[in-house]
This record gives sequence, structure tokens and C-alpha cells, in this order.
Amino acid sequence: MHAIQVPPGAPASPLSPPAATAADGTPRQLAQQLAQAFAVTAAERDARGGTPKAERDALRASGLLALSIPLRYGGHGASWRETLDAVRTVGRADGSLGHVFGFHHLMLATVRLFGAPVQWEAWFEQTARHQWFWGNALNPLDERAVSREHGDWREFNGQKSFCSGALDSEMLIASARDADSGTLLIAAIPTGRSGISVAEDWDNIGQRQTDSGTVTFKKVRVEHHEILADPGPLSTPFACLRPLLAQLILTNIYLGISEGAFDDARHYTLHESRPWHAAKVERTDDDPYILGQYGEFWVGLESARVLADRAADRLDAAWQRGAALTEAQRGEVALAVATAKVCATETGLGICTRMFDVAGARATHGALRLDRHWRNLRTHTLHDPLAYKLRELGDWVLKQRYPTPGFYS
Amino acid sequence: MHAIQVPPGAPASPLSPPAATAADGTPRQLAQQLAQAFAVTAAERDARGGTPKAERDALRASGLLALSIPLRYGGHGASWRETLDAVRTVGRADGSLGHVFGFHHLMLATVRLFGAPVQWEAWFEQTARHQWFWGNALNPLDERAVSREHGDWREFNGQKSFCSGALDSEMLIASARDADSGTLLIAAIPTGRSGISVAEDWDNIGQRQTDSGTVTFKKVRVEHHEILADPGPLSTPFACLRPLLAQLILTNIYLGISEGAFDDARHYTLHESRPWHAAKVERTDDDPYILGQYGEFWVGLESARVLADRAADRLDAAWQRGAALTEAQRGEVALAVATAKVCATETGLGICTRMFDVAGARATHGALRLDRHWRNLRTHTLHDPLAYKLRELGDWVLKQRYPTPGFYS
Amino acid sequence: MHAIQVPPGAPASPLSPPAATAADGTPRQLAQQLAQAFAVTAAERDARGGTPKAERDALRASGLLALSIPLRYGGHGASWRETLDAVRTVGRADGSLGHVFGFHHLMLATVRLFGAPVQWEAWFEQTARHQWFWGNALNPLDERAVSREHGDWREFNGQKSFCSGALDSEMLIASARDADSGTLLIAAIPTGRSGISVAEDWDNIGQRQTDSGTVTFKKVRVEHHEILADPGPLSTPFACLRPLLAQLILTNIYLGISEGAFDDARHYTLHESRPWHAAKVERTDDDPYILGQYGEFWVGLESARVLADRAADRLDAAWQRGAALTEAQRGEVALAVATAKVCATETGLGICTRMFDVAGARATHGALRLDRHWRNLRTHTLHDPLAYKLRELGDWVLKQRYPTPGFYS
Amino acid sequence: MHAIQVPPGAPASPLSPPAATAADGTPRQLAQQLAQAFAVTAAERDARGGTPKAERDALRASGLLALSIPLRYGGHGASWRETLDAVRTVGRADGSLGHVFGFHHLMLATVRLFGAPVQWEAWFEQTARHQWFWGNALNPLDERAVSREHGDWREFNGQKSFCSGALDSEMLIASARDADSGTLLIAAIPTGRSGISVAEDWDNIGQRQTDSGTVTFKKVRVEHHEILADPGPLSTPFACLRPLLAQLILTNIYLGISEGAFDDARHYTLHESRPWHAAKVERTDDDPYILGQYGEFWVGLESARVLADRAADRLDAAWQRGAALTEAQRGEVALAVATAKVCATETGLGICTRMFDVAGARATHGALRLDRHWRNLRTHTLHDPLAYKLRELGDWVLKQRYPTPGFYS
Repeated sequence: MHAIQVPPGAPASPLSPPAATAADGTPRQLAQQLAQAFAVTAAERDARGGTPKAERDALRASGLLALSIPLRYGGHGASWRETLDAVRTVGRADGSLGHVFGFHHLMLATVRLFGAPVQWEAWFEQTARHQWFWGNALNPLDERAVSREHGDWREFNGQKSFCSGALDSEMLIASARDADSGTLLIAAIPTGRSGISVAEDWDNIGQRQTDSGTVTFKKVRVEHHEILADPGPLSTPFACLRPLLAQLILTNIYLGISEGAFDDARHYTLHESRPWHAAKVERTDDDPYILGQYGEFWVGLESARVLADRAADRLDAAWQRGAALTEAQRGEVALAVATAKVCATETGLGICTRMFDVAGARATHGALRLDRHWRNLRTHTLHDPLAYKLRELGDWVLKQRYPTPGFYS
Repeated sequence: MHAIQVPPGAPASPLSPPAATAADGTPRQLAQQLAQAFAVTAAERDARGGTPKAERDALRASGLLALSIPLRYGGHGASWRETLDAVRTVGRADGSLGHVFGFHHLMLATVRLFGAPVQWEAWFEQTARHQWFWGNALNPLDERAVSREHGDWREFNGQKSFCSGALDSEMLIASARDADSGTLLIAAIPTGRSGISVAEDWDNIGQRQTDSGTVTFKKVRVEHHEILADPGPLSTPFACLRPLLAQLILTNIYLGISEGAFDDARHYTLHESRPWHAAKVERTDDDPYILGQYGEFWVGLESARVLADRAADRLDAAWQRGAALTEAQRGEVALAVATAKVCATETGLGICTRMFDVAGARATHGALRLDRHWRNLRTHTLHDPLAYKLRELGDWVLKQRYPTPGFYS
Repeated sequence: MHAIQVPPGAPASPLSPPAATAADGTPRQLAQQLAQAFAVTAAERDARGGTPKAERDALRASGLLALSIPLRYGGHGASWRETLDAVRTVGRADGSLGHVFGFHHLMLATVRLFGAPVQWEAWFEQTARHQWFWGNALNPLDERAVSREHGDWREFNGQKSFCSGALDSEMLIASARDADSGTLLIAAIPTGRSGISVAEDWDNIGQRQTDSGTVTFKKVRVEHHEILADPGPLSTPFACLRPLLAQLILTNIYLGISEGAFDDARHYTLHESRPWHAAKVERTDDDPYILGQYGEFWVGLESARVLADRAADRLDAAWQRGAALTEAQRGEVALAVATAKVCATETGLGICTRMFDVAGARATHGALRLDRHWRNLRTHTLHDPLAYKLRELGDWVLKQRYPTPGFYS
Repeated sequence: MHAIQVPPGAPASPLSPPAATAADGTPRQLAQQLAQAFAVTAAERDARGGTPKAERDALRASGLLALSIPLRYGGHGASWRETLDAVRTVGRADGSLGHVFGFHHLMLATVRLFGAPVQWEAWFEQTARHQWFWGNALNPLDERAVSREHGDWREFNGQKSFCSGALDSEMLIASARDADSGTLLIAAIPTGRSGISVAEDWDNIGQRQTDSGTVTFKKVRVEHHEILADPGPLSTPFACLRPLLAQLILTNIYLGISEGAFDDARHYTLHESRPWHAAKVERTDDDPYILGQYGEFWVGLESARVLADRAADRLDAAWQRGAALTEAQRGEVALAVATAKVCATETGLGICTRMFDVAGARATHGALRLDRHWRNLRTHTLHDPLAYKLRELGDWVLKQRYPTPGFYS
């Protein structure tokens, strides 16, 4: 197992937002330090796939799993803007780790939004105290898991695919349909509970260390107090912030991956590439077409960044409103999130492909695995179709109709 | 001459930012009311070309020519963010009027940045008191105007092209090269001064009411106290905010034009177009491709808007720093402005062309002159080449080199 | 009225296909000579709108109205490849004239494809002999014209919009729905017949001299032998070549307009533009970004040209098969035509907008009216939605389903 | 070692060009049969990297290594159009095999164009008789190999990188600079000659079985009659067809890879993907956005295909002219080749990325390795910068200057 080496005082990229000073040890700085360490082994771990156990433990040890948990429950009390910034920072170093780290916070938000205080207060405290990692077993498109009532408990049976971060997690958010009514039930349960098995069957072209495999439930006993039924899934405008947070986490992972690709391209242009003979320039960074290409990358990244940040601010404001949040207010968040996601996706796919045009042929060396940026982004951007996000925005433009809340909007 | 009719209480577009209420009569509301009136006659005036005298007088009467002037000199004391918002609002109704209105404020900023307090204090006061309109005779690429020293005054001779808003102005910002040293001299002089003639020779495919024609100086006497020599043109980082403001005014005009095109497209899609038979939908706004196209318009517009607003905020912050502004701080504004300008240009050209794909063939009727959006934007976006803005941004990315201050950066 | 001046021996553009030598007087050379003359006055006539009477008469005098008519009926016996080449050549000089010239040949093809030999043989002979110009009154989307049986003749009543080339024509292809059955009836009738009035009501942002206005039928008597009922509209695979020819004529007009824009851009880049100071080059044609932009224009134009030519060759081969043409063979033509049309549209809109980026700001001078390329192309490319052409091609790819014949496919 | 299984009578893709019938056993059919077999193991071999020994031997056994060799020397006498079609067919199944197969024919053309009849006649005969595979050790950008005169022979020392197909080859085209004069020397020598070592050091993100590693020359004796000095490299317009053939081979490999990606996408859309719930369609192939995306793929592929075929036809015509070929005639080939290459590159990168949007998330499963299309194309399209191909075309447009012959133009 490779060691996690946090370089003390390693400078952030000159193109990064100014980092906090070393002294203050802010969550942002913690995230940046972890990210620098993760980046060192990202290529190797991409080759390997499987569970990034050491890195997950480093995240545990950092305390950042409690980043979004309010202070009163032992967390950092970070805003979503701050939490998403940390997700982006981790994702810039490693798309898979950004993914599992972001989804962990999404799971915490899920218990907050769908559950009762008596539920999430306890889980928040324990998560902060024990550095629990939460995993996902909620895929709403996979209908194979069913649940039956057994007096004061329920039984879950069946399977869920695409369960990112379920392996090596302490807690799971799991869903199943009631066998009779078809009602969607969502529960928070310990991953180690009897009857739950998490397969190591994730093998994909990208996001290779997200463990997004299959979770199987065999006669799993779920207590009623573990069901998130008050207020329940997508039951109020406030509860409906959950898919928006999910989409915005995706957006920040995409953006982080794109920034990572951009960083690597820049490094290779500056330090490894040779100017093309017909360019008649001494240095690659004087080639007019390469300069122009970086200008386009920059405009794309900046657009995605300001849109993502605005969406996070709107989300934070909506979050503050809590149960008072109206459908229209929730709708404004939805528009900002969808806009940012489209921009981040299109910008990112361009950068992850075009980066090689400016980084030069040496950047395609196998050991560098710089294609992982494209593979990571390409894989994750298939989460839900971009064309339908654009259609939602078109519905807004033409009909002043906010996106209909659902698990993808 | 057509009358300016300000509809009292006419609602803003549902897609506009929420308007101030009628009661408060804020500058923003004033701009919106004027814009609504200007929009009514925009097509007719585009056909006519020439000077929009009635509209210029309406701008005078509104008090908005003092929008960016500090309160102590009788102005509204608006920030650049607010002033640029008004420019965008006017430009949304009519690109030409956005142009002359924006450039008026650029001329005021020019005396502020290049001149001494004793100069701009007086001009600010008089402008606010007399509702002066300032015009441009500064084209730095046209070297035909020269100046000679005559003891305590100077003589200007020669010509300047592309002098937007010079016609029907009270004051001009004029430039010439010293005949001996070649030094650039910039002066603020009354348009009516003996020897100045402003030709009505502007006839262009777009921005047709900007009067961007030729100003001729024949033995024009310019007093020393009219020369902006302390600190002088582009002499300090603070003075070098001038081209950034110019570029950001352009950006907001482009954005306004694009929003106007978007508004018109939306109107025609909703009210005039017929669904294509193969779409098998009852209403055009259910056509999946049309919805998708509007989604893309929206993402583009939102990107340009957030980037433009961020640039304006950075400009305001830099402006507050005054003489203490550093080159690096100025450079950060320059990056934000260039990024916003590229995005607004590319987004806008797409919308002004593609709007007809969604608005339908009837939108090409000659009397509507909806092609004016494309003509206006296309003309104005040639102010300086986009390719070189992108190269500047590439220089920043690869070399951490801020754009070199000049009249276009 | 301006004179038509055909410069004897004026060389074709160096980027044009090699012209025939002056001695042979081929149809291609005739078209090129006419085009050169039309180009001289294109801007002026774009401003004027209305009927290009002198140019239409020059087309009559040239004999090119008989270009597609077989030799045995007194025509030139040109293939569709040759005829479409002439349409493109005329369109390169003037989009409106390319349009009316192309649609004239479409009307001739309509009588050939929908009518009986006894009908089209006579019309072909008379057209060739008397240099008739045929106009369009067939708009299948406008259902206002109806027809009633009156024993041995029919009466047409109602209106048709978008009747390109109806003014100043000798013959019309007119359509109406049977008042009882709703059956579509298409007839070839003299434009001068009692009850037909052709309004001069075409006023559009582009294609301004196509006279695409309204034709009104008031108790117009149409003889049975004027109805194209044997085999009738879209009745056989061969008859269904008609919409494909229509679409390919559009494609060649789009391509001609784009080539005209390209020619004008090139002229201004080479002879009028000034290099941008930051480019540090002596001549505009050494600016790397301008060179790159022309490279992209070239790739786009060449793509559209080879696709359009291939489609024409496939159409000619299908035409030769006559009544033996199968649905699949017709389908192969349809695919080639749709592919070419999509490419010509997208390439052309880009060139007509981007041409100004390379031609420089002077190219926006009003008197040049170089925006007419964009206006012409933008107007005409709305004939039917591109999105549905792409969907048709997608249907082919996924389902091996040829485009369903109809008036637009 | 996996077996090569040629499915007898397996049908070509319905979207392929119509295959020759099984009876005739044409080279085209042979190529298609081999391609079908190669496709079966392409994913596995992409994972493995290294030398595709079995497939190279299958190519040997097929006789296709003699495809471009004239009949009189025992070859198939195929035109370049036919040979390139076979390269594209093989590349459609496997980018690496298309590459080594295409480059083999490029090496044969190199001896033909740079050498004397007495040289290439013998090599052609032996190649046809013994099914030799030729490899590349010519990289003109790698200046590390030098040569010294030793009376009647020369010694080669040094290294060459990017030597595609050198491993498992019988013959090499090798180059070195004369140590004194710097003159480029190109020789055809047996790969097994003493002093030549071919490293198995190719490990890249794409084109993983091209063995494009390093060849080292240590005191390698090269006879004078092995040097291609009559007429010598790039010495005449005819000799200068060599880089054009090289670029057109690249173009056809790119196109083959893109067609392979398209085929795989189509398979997954039709057979594996599930319709998105918001689409409200039963089958994915009724989703309007997916249909539209395939329409765009089709237009891109068709554009690249017709341009590539036209370039091949021009090359064949130029080849026929032999020593009589003029610079201008060679220049016309160069334009067609450059145009096709730009189109194939841009189209292909889009398809290889966007294919997943239509194929669905399951297509990202690791074992399928469908990302290899993007990896293969991305790697190979960095051969020489696209931006400079576009600039060359811009030079042609603005200055009527043909691309200057060199190893990349």
C-alpha cells in the first residue's frame, strides 16, 4: 500500500484560488493538502481500480467527513459553497475521490432533508465523532430492491447498481420499493448489517476507484426509525433540494476533473512539449495557436466556475430558509444548478480532449495515464442526459416552468 | 419625429431581473422605462440611421447621463456595476443607444482617470447640472490628428474616424499626437468650439444610430487646462482602468443586444410560429429541438451575465482603491473583463443567428428588422479582434502575465 | 434601370473551378458571365428589393432557362449536376437570382415528374422557344387555396404565400386542395390568366429580389389538361424525386451564397484590411489567426461542395432510371441530398458571420451591404428546419429507414 | 495466443459500403473478413498492448501486404483508392492494425518514390513473394541517428523514436543525417541486420499495438545500394507525393477509427441502452435528441468520407503522371489531402467522445474498452498539429500558395 504523503507547505497551483495560509489550518487548506497527496498517486490508482482505502482513511483522519455537519453536532459547520469547493479541490486531484467524498456529504444531506431531527441529529453526531464514511445504495432507476412490512420492522431484498462509495463505508443510504404499494422507501443503515453484501464488481473506463458496484440485500432487517419518512423523499420544496445538491456535487466533480486536466496540460506545455517547426517560435508557449487554445480553456473554466459558485450560493440561501422554502425559490436554485452543470460538462469534455493538442504527443505516454481525465469525466457525465437538462432550461425560458422535482432535477 | 412614450408601469419581461417598483424611481427603473420606449421605435430608427435626437434628449431628461457621477457633484453616485447594468438595459432595447449611453460614461471616466481633480470636478458638476452628453473623438488607431504648441494653448488639426456619439454632444474627448514628439494628447473640449466639424458620414450595416463618423479639427484651439495630462493617459494602474471600462461597456452592450435578440425570438416562438408538421406537437414550445435550442441560449446568456457582473464588481473594487491600485490588482480586473467579453461575443453571435431557427420564417419579415440584432452585434464585435483577447488570456494561463495595458487591453 | 454589363473575358476568381474557355460559349461560361454582371449590382438591388426585371430578362436572353430541358425539345440537355452548378454560380453572385433561376428549373422538373408526356413535351418546347420563366405558387404548407370541379374544368380560389418568382413569370405551378376530398391538385397555368393576381408584397430581410410574395386566385379557370395528375404529385419513387431536387437546389443556393461571402471576405482581407497591431505582422494575410480562419472556411466549403456534387450525381443516376426507380434507390438520393443540405447550411452560416472577423471593420460599411450574404442565407435556410433533416438522417442510421417522401424530404 | 477466426459469410454492417460477394474473393473482401476477425479481439489486445503477432501473420497470409504492389511484381496492383479503402476497413476494426498495415504500404511507396527502379523492383518482388512486412524508422523530427561514409558503405548509429511497425518486420525504412553534411539519408534495410535493435518500449494511451517504440542503430552497415538516393527524398514533385500519401493514410486510419466508434455506438443504442424516462418514448431509437445526434455523426462521417475518397482519386491521378507531375498538380493533391485530414480529425474526435451520450452508461463498462476509440484517435491525431494544416489551407486561400513540401505536408 502506498503511503499518503502530505507535502508540508507545498504551494497551490499559481492558477488556483489563493490558498489559506498554513497557520490557520482551515478546511480548505486541509482539502488542498489532501488533494496534493492524492494527486501523486492518482495515475497509479486509476490503473489499479478498486477501493482507495488509504485515501479514504486519510479523508477520515482529516476530519473533512464532518465538513458539512453543523458545529453543534461536532462538524465544521461549512456552507455548501465551502463543502462543494472542497469536493472540487479533491476532484481536481482525483475524480474518484472527489466523487466518494462528495457523495458522502450528499448522503448526510439526504438524512437531513428526508428524515426527522431525532434521526439526523444522532447520525450527524456519530459521523463526526467516529469519522464515518457514508455510501450510496439509492439508485432510483434500479427497481430491483423491494421491501415488506414485518410489524415493527421491514425487510429489504434485492439489488441496487451504481452504489458509489458503498464499499468501505460505515453507513449506507439504501432504497427499496414497498412490495405492495410501490412506495419508495429510503433508509439509513449500517453497511455491516447482516444480509448486506457489497460487491467489488465495479470495473469501468473511468471513475475507477469509486466502487460504484452492486449492493445486494438479502433479508436485511430495517427498523422503522431507520426509514427516512418524516418528511420523506422529495416531500417538500426543502426536501427537494436533495437532487439539486446531487447535481451540484456532480458539477463540482466535473469542474475539478477539468481543472486537473488543465493543470496537467499546462505542465506538459511548459515543461515537456517542443515547439512545432512551422511555428518558428523558440518556446511552445509562444505558439499563437496554443496560446489561443489556452485562452478558450480559460474562458470555459471561468464560466463554469462562476456558474457553479453562484448555484452554491443560491443553494446555501435556500438551505437557510428550511421548511419555509417555496417551490419558486427552490426552482431558482434548480435553474442555477442546471445551467452550471451544462456548462461544466461541455467545457470539461472539450478540455479533456483538446488538452493533448497543446500538451504535445509525449503527454500520451501510457504511464502518465493522462487520458484518465477524459475517461473520468466522460463516465461521470453520463449520470443523466445533458440533452434533457437543456430541455428543462428551454421549458423555463418558454413557459416559465421550473424543473419538475425528481431524483435528477 | 416620433414621440417618446414611456409606458407607466409596463411590466418588464418575465425573464428580466425583477424591476424596482414604480414608486421608488430608481436609476434602474428609469433605465428600464426608457428602454421600453426605445424598443418601440428601434426597428424604425435602425432603418433610418442618423442621430437618435429624441432618444438622446430623453436620456438627457432622465438624468441618467449623471448616473456614474458621484453624489457630491450632483450625480447619482452609481457604481460601475449599476451603470453597466443600465447600459445593458438600454442596449437590450437598442444597441445604438446602449452604445452612445455607455460611451458617454466612458468619456466621463476618461477625464476622471487621465485628468486632475480640478478638471473633472468642474466637468462632472456641469455635466450633471446641464445634462451634457459626451462624445468620442479619441480613436487611438487613427493617427491623422496632430497638435502643435502655441505658448499657452495648443492647436489641433486633422481627423478622427469612428467618433461614436460625437454628433449632438456637448463635450468631446479628443486626441492628437504632438507634431514634434509624437506624444499622445487627450483633451476635453466643447463640441461646439470653432474649427470642429462633426460629419454625418456614418452609414454602416449595424449600430446605425451611433453616429460613429468623422470629426475634423481645423485650427482648433485647445487650452492647456483642457488637456488631460495629470496623471495623463494610461500613466498609472488606476488610469489604466480606462480601457478595461471601455471593454466592459462593450461587453454589456453585446450582452444587451443578445438579450434583445433572445426576447424577440421568444416572442415569435410563443406567439407567431407554427409547429413543424414532422414534430407532431400542438405547440411550437413543445418541439424538443426548439426547447433544447432555448436551453443552450440560456446557458450562454447566463454564463455571459455572471462573468460580466463579476468583472463589474472587480472593477468597482479596483476603482475604490484609486491611486493605490497595483498592476496586479489592475491585472485581475483585466482578466475578468477579457473573459466576459469573449463569452459575450461568442454567445451573442450564436443567439443572433440561431434565433431565427426557433422564431420561424415569419420573423424574417422585413418590417420587423430582426436582423438588426445580428447586424448590431456583428458590427460592434469587430471593435478589436477576439483572437487577440484569447491570446492574452493564454498568455496569462501559461506565463502568469497580465494583459499589457493599452487602449484595447 | 441599371444596365447589364457582361464583361467579355473577365477572369473567374482564382479560387473558382476552372472556367471554360471563352471560345466555346458553354452554358457554364454563360452562367459565369451572367453571374459576373449580376454581382456588380447585387448590393444595389438588395437595397432596392422588388423584381430584378433586367436580370431576369438577361437570363431569358441567355437561353439558360432552357438549360435543363432535353435537346429534343430545344433545350441544352444539361444534367442536373450541370444545372445545379449553374444555379450555384448565379447564387454566388446574387442569392435572389440563384433562387428564381433554380426554382424555374424546379418548376420544369415538376411538370416532368408529376405530369404526362403530352403535357411536359409541349411546355418544354414552348419554354425553350419563348424563353418562358416559370414561377412557384405551390406552397404545400399554405392550405388557403381550394379547387372545385366544374364539369370539364376546375376553379381555383384562395391564396398561396411564399410564391418565389411568380412575378414577371410566364407560367406558374399552382396548387390547391379539392374542396370536397382534400386531394392536392397541382396545375401548370399561364401567370397572365384571368383571376390570378401576384402581389408585390415580398419584403424580407433576405433574398429580397425573389418576389416570394402572395398569389391570389379568384375564380381562376383551370383546364383538366393543365392538372398534373398522371402520374400525379409524389405518386411514384420517380415522382418523389421532385422534393429532392428542390432540396438540392436550396443546397446549391446556400453554397453559392457562402462562396460569394467567402469571395468578398477574401477581397477585403487582401485589399482593405489592416493588420492588428498586436499581430506584429506587416500584412493581414500573415496573421496566424486569420490564416487559420480561412483554413476552416475552406474545409467547410470543400465539404459542402463534394457532398452537393455527389448528391447531384446520384440524382442524375436516379433520373436516368425513370419509372424503374425503386424506393431504395430514391432513398439513397434522399440521404445524399439531406447530408449535403445540412453541411451547406451549417458551413454557410458560419462563413457569413465569421467573414467579418477576417475582412475587418471596413467591410461593415453600409454601402457594401456585405451583410446581405448572412441575410440571404439566414432567410432561405429557414425553408424547413435543419433539426428535422438531422432526425431523418438519424432514423436512417438507427433504423435503416429512408426519409419518408413528402414535399420537404 | 488467441485464434484468428474469420467468420465465413459474416455480413458487413448494414451501414458499410456494399461488400463484394463471397465468390470473388477480392482484396476488399479479404480486408473485410480480416477486419471482422480483428474486431473480435480488439478490446483484449488493446488491454494487452505489445505486438499483434497473430494478426500481423494473418495480414501476411492474406496477401494484402502486396496490395499496392503492381501486378508485374506479383502484387494486386491496387490503386491508392483501393489500398486506402483497405486501410480504413482494417482501422475500423482496430486502429493499431490499420496503422501498421497502412504504414507498411507507405514504406513500399517510399522506396518507389525516393529510390531507383533497380531498387524498388527487387524489393517489390521479394515483398510480394515472401509476404514481408515493412516497418518505419524514419522519424524526421528525431535527429539522433547519424551516418558516416566508409568507402563503399555507410555506418548508421543512433536512435529513432516512434518507429511504428518496426517490431516483427522484415524490412525497415531508416533514416539518419550525414555526420558531416547533415544531409538526410534514407535507406531500406533488413530489420534483422546486425546492430539494429528494436525496443519493446511503446506504452501509450492509444494505438497500443503499433509498436511505435525506439529503434537503435549500433554500427549498422548500410550498403550504398540500400540508400534511396535516386532521385532521393522529396527531390521531385513526384517524390513529394510521399508525405501526401502518409497524411492520407493517417486520414483513413482516423476515419476507420471513427467508423468503428460509430458502429459500436449504434450497437449499444439499439441493443443495450434504455430510454431516458423524461423522453417518454418506448425505445431509445425514438429519442429525438439521440436521433439528432446520430444525424450529426452521419453528416460528419459522410463529409470525411467523400473528402478522403476525392483525395485518393487525386493522388491516383498524380501517381499516374509519375515524373511528369508538376508542382501545381502535386499541390492540388496536397490541398485535397489536408482538407480531408482536418475534417476526419474534427469529426472523429467528436464522435469518439459523443458516442457515449447516445450509447448509454453501460457502454462505459471496463471490459468493453470502448474508450479505446477515443484513445486511439486522440493519440494518432497528434502526429502533427491540426492548427498548422489549417494555416496551410489559409495560405492557399489567401495567397494561392500550395503547401510547401516537407515530411508533414
